[in-house]
Amino acid sequence: MVTEQMGVARAPGRPRSEKAERAIVDATIDMLAEGTSVAELSIEAIATRAGVGKTTIYRRWSNKEDLVVDALATLKPPVPEPLGRSAREDIVRHLGAMQQETHDRRLRCITTIALSESDRYPHLAERFREIAIKPRREALRAIIQRGVDTGEFRAGIDVEMAMAALSGAMLFFTKWRDPKEELPADLAERITAQVLAGLHA
Amino acid sequence: MVTEQMGVARAPGRPRSEKAERAIVDATIDMLAEGTSVAELSIEAIATRAGVGKTTIYRRWSNKEDLVVDALATLKPPVPEPLGRSAREDIVRHLGAMQQETHDRRLRCITTIALSESDRYPHLAERFREIAIKPRREALRAIIQRGVDTGEFRAGIDVEMAMAALSGAMLFFTKWRDPKEELPADLAERITAQVLAGLHA
Repeated sequence: MVTEQMGVARAPGRPRSEKAERAIVDATIDMLAEGTSVAELSIEAIATRAGVGKTTIYRRWSNKEDLVVDALATLKPPVPEPLGRSAREDIVRHLGAMQQETHDRRLRCITTIALSESDRYPHLAERFREIAIKPRREALRAIIQRGVDTGEFRAGIDVEMAMAALSGAMLFFTKWRDPKEELPADLAERITAQVLAGLHA
Repeated sequence: MVTEQMGVARAPGRPRSEKAERAIVDATIDMLAEGTSVAELSIEAIATRAGVGKTTIYRRWSNKEDLVVDALATLKPPVPEPLGRSAREDIVRHLGAMQQETHDRRLRCITTIALSESDRYPHLAERFREIAIKPRREALRAIIQRGVDTGEFRAGIDVEMAMAALSGAMLFFTKWRDPKEELPADLAERITAQVLAGLHA
């Protein structure tokens, strides 16, 4: 309690506990972004970094995994609202937002950590999929389905595979490639054009 | 030295050092597969697990990162030889081999570790891309190019984006999805069919 009072700046009109919570979440995100794995992360180190006492953390989170899940949730990338003029345009915007994320070092590290440690922290991986992957996947499914409904896309396309091809292609470039390689500025357009057009002669 | 003699089984006709090397590499892979991150891995723990002395390890590898790279190299997944009858068939075989890998727990963990720790171990990530990603990418590029050359695929397709859509879709299912979800047995065929056919009405 004393540590919390010393470590957290006061401002009128904002409860002290909210400020402490923000400092704890920020410290967690910063440490993950710097390359600390979830396994290595300790409540003690987070408390020191946030300038609070360990009890302040344990009052809100019963364990490290729950704290990491809440920290990841604050980074939830925004899913762009479809414009509804054409499915193609909305797909490009959707993929463009995915590409934008790679410029945020914190988002980039954390996605990777959450996925790479899924064998060790299945609860964390599940919550992460719920928070960050599912809403985005549903948004893309709705765009493609609307394209089928309006006749822009063929009836009978394999929606699941089309979604995997579009998001997977963007993930391939943003997660699998050498991070030093410059990505083309029109990557979202190029992926969309190729997946829509297909390969057949 | 004494530890090495005690810890490694002897067999006639096979040099002792080769056996020790195998034990060290196996210990490294096992620990990574169990969820130990590269950061957490120590030469001491590897030596204990392999039943050798630390000096035996340092005689071959000057640091942990080099040992991990060599260990990853032994797991290099085979890239299937194209049959050359149709590009479509060779793409299905290529993606099928990628899917097969997910049944190998050791391969699955290690790929993820190598990628997730790329910010911390850029040399490791680079060697990994060289060993495991590049040969596979070149094989897929050659298959698609042959499809264009024979007229099975349209001239003027965006080969890079087609490759990203195909591999990315498979990675999307094998790396991004809930590992408890069963993957369809005909996943490679479904991805190939959709990416080849496109979405346009």
